[in-house]
Amino acid sequence: MNFDRIFSENSRNLQASEIRELLKLLDRPSIISFAGGLPNPDAFPIEELKPVIEHVMKEHAYDALQYGPTEGHNKLRDAIAKGMKSLFNCDQEMDNIIITGGSQQGLTLLAHIIIDPGDTVITGNPTYLGAIQVFNAFRANIEAVAQDEGGINHHSLRERLQDLNRRGKYPKLIYLIPTFENPTGITLSEERRKAIYDIICEYDLLLVEDDPYGLLRYDGEALNPIKSMDNEDRVIYLGSFSKILAPGFRIAWLAGPAPIIRKACILKQSQDLCASTFGQYCVFEAMRSDMLFPHIEIIKQMYRSKRDIMLKALDNYMPDGVKWSRPLGGMFIWVTLPLFMDSVELLPKAIENNVAYVAGKSFFPGGGGANTLRLNFSYATDGQIDRGIRLLAEVVQKELDLKGKGLKGEYISAF
Amino acid sequence: MNFDRIFSENSRNLQASEIRELLKLLDRPSIISFAGGLPNPDAFPIEELKPVIEHVMKEHAYDALQYGPTEGHNKLRDAIAKGMKSLFNCDQEMDNIIITGGSQQGLTLLAHIIIDPGDTVITGNPTYLGAIQVFNAFRANIEAVAQDEGGINHHSLRERLQDLNRRGKYPKLIYLIPTFENPTGITLSEERRKAIYDIICEYDLLLVEDDPYGLLRYDGEALNPIKSMDNEDRVIYLGSFSKILAPGFRIAWLAGPAPIIRKACILKQSQDLCASTFGQYCVFEAMRSDMLFPHIEIIKQMYRSKRDIMLKALDNYMPDGVKWSRPLGGMFIWVTLPLFMDSVELLPKAIENNVAYVAGKSFFPGGGGANTLRLNFSYATDGQIDRGIRLLAEVVQKELDLKGKGLKGEYISAF
Repeated sequence: MNFDRIFSENSRNLQASEIRELLKLLDRPSIISFAGGLPNPDAFPIEELKPVIEHVMKEHAYDALQYGPTEGHNKLRDAIAKGMKSLFNCDQEMDNIIITGGSQQGLTLLAHIIIDPGDTVITGNPTYLGAIQVFNAFRANIEAVAQDEGGINHHSLRERLQDLNRRGKYPKLIYLIPTFENPTGITLSEERRKAIYDIICEYDLLLVEDDPYGLLRYDGEALNPIKSMDNEDRVIYLGSFSKILAPGFRIAWLAGPAPIIRKACILKQSQDLCASTFGQYCVFEAMRSDMLFPHIEIIKQMYRSKRDIMLKALDNYMPDGVKWSRPLGGMFIWVTLPLFMDSVELLPKAIENNVAYVAGKSFFPGGGGANTLRLNFSYATDGQIDRGIRLLAEVVQKELDLKGKGLKGEYISAF
Repeated sequence: MNFDRIFSENSRNLQASEIRELLKLLDRPSIISFAGGLPNPDAFPIEELKPVIEHVMKEHAYDALQYGPTEGHNKLRDAIAKGMKSLFNCDQEMDNIIITGGSQQGLTLLAHIIIDPGDTVITGNPTYLGAIQVFNAFRANIEAVAQDEGGINHHSLRERLQDLNRRGKYPKLIYLIPTFENPTGITLSEERRKAIYDIICEYDLLLVEDDPYGLLRYDGEALNPIKSMDNEDRVIYLGSFSKILAPGFRIAWLAGPAPIIRKACILKQSQDLCASTFGQYCVFEAMRSDMLFPHIEIIKQMYRSKRDIMLKALDNYMPDGVKWSRPLGGMFIWVTLPLFMDSVELLPKAIENNVAYVAGKSFFPGGGGANTLRLNFSYATDGQIDRGIRLLAEVVQKELDLKGKGLKGEYISAF
């Protein structure tokens, strides 16, 4: 059978994620990998979850094993709405919330109900790879706005929108991870949040605010999501239990304007009928039994310490001319190599030296970033982090010795 | 904010399922509902699942709570491949299988990678509502081929394909539920299976064979799926654990040609990263611990008895001129009222009389079926089934008395 005739236009854009393909190659036990984006399994509350799951099977098995409402179980939606109010000062009713199979499914639902082929969406440059994949799967035109040390720059954003409008293009949405961004670890300041919200109102845009890491803050004062400023009801907030409880239940939520929720819910009927009911019950009982928030403190301690170990190792081992972010939370550190270096070319040498990362290039839908790379600090053991950064620094030093001669002083990148 | 500008062309076709909207109205405890398509919660192996889930948490919690491979965990894929060989005589390798969040997600993945707006897909008339919804969400042109008491007729199918080809239309796929079809309960004979497989080869089509009920056979000899004849590798088989274990885990699978699996897997990365890992572990351990197949026998006993109670009640109470299917398995009985009756109009009267069904019309993408309705026999208690059919028969009798006078002899529908 000739499958060329069979595949849709949408499917022709689909490309395997380089990251996920890479991860498959990293099974060699000698390799220390900072390439994934996985929570640490030691951060799963296994002992605390056992009585939670027992309770679900004892008291709610009939419902937890059955199909459930497409929008999700009301008690979980209600608990999330209350949590968004008390933690984030976001006024959400249960009816504004739909439970999804991970935030990734939330993104797919949004893309399907919003994006026609050729429609323009705005992201940061760089941005989350999974969002790029979704937008590509619906053949969006991605306009990626430059970031600086403070994240997406609101002046650059406004200029890009003005330019697009001049060319007759009116984007429908902007996608951002304002807090502890994947891949950079950067958090938008309160001032930038306000400035960006003003811009999306002025240009009549939706904002998709993806916030999987917001509760994993290790230093400084918490900032409320942009959703908390949303008096025009144009922000769609994506929250997730994957990083604060466990990804294996595949339970996340989408909170947004009623017309979006209605469409997303009808679409979700045809996509999977409902998110895992069993997972919803486990997550709800974890919230109800008051184990979730104390457990988040434990995760924060663990990841704060891992971040500090990685930062210290970078300080100790990395040669001059290499820069990195000092994230206040989340799971990633962003490294900028000297401009003449290419992290894609460097990767086989790193793997040869038993350490892996993700080359930054994949995160730049607007191009660039060849000299950047992403390090995950949540997954590796403390000892692996120190050793892995030392191995990586050796590779970078060798590359510097090889290619950097005579470039002293010129090779420090601006961002 | 004006959302009209925001929504995609795809989303404009989305309509809430009449069935799911209806189900929300049926919370009144006095109503006996045959409208849903739910497994009976008494058919969930709650006691048997408790040790299975305990084992998962004791031995596999690190993996079961983590993200997993997009294509699904290998041990589950391998167990399914072996099961398809031993139960259905289908030669499948693990690599031909992707684990999905319900078969509904399998359908969505297929539609996304195959259907461009306006592409033609073929279904039976009637067919599964959830498939109609998916095809609509991707703006397919549905060509629904008439069914008779034996299911989709292969002569009608060939004629339709000839006609479409004459008009320059070359469908990409045909969607069928060959065994204990939802909504009709009909099973295609071995001869029709062969004839249909020959036709899809001749016309270079894919066949999507949806088989959620195949293992729930109450009478007669098992027939192998059409997939077992597939020496040209053009059948995509959708299997599910929802009806034989529990829908709450949302675990199903798609088995098909390698090029389809590859594309579906890349798309699934962007859709939800992976199906519930926890659900996959529970399902695998249910298979490994040998509780699944003995449990299917228990479900079959329960549903066989419920089917028989419903058939007997129909025999006892229904007035002359009403016909119904006598399904050999599955969850549904299909009722054909006299031609002059409209089951949509009748429904409020039925609900008034405390009994509910799904009007057949929704299942007919090609139009027609106004005098048909679907009864589910898996969910209600035995007592409710007898009483509910009596209540329904009263309503039908009243309608006959009201509208059927002078029509004696003319009102028996051919199908």
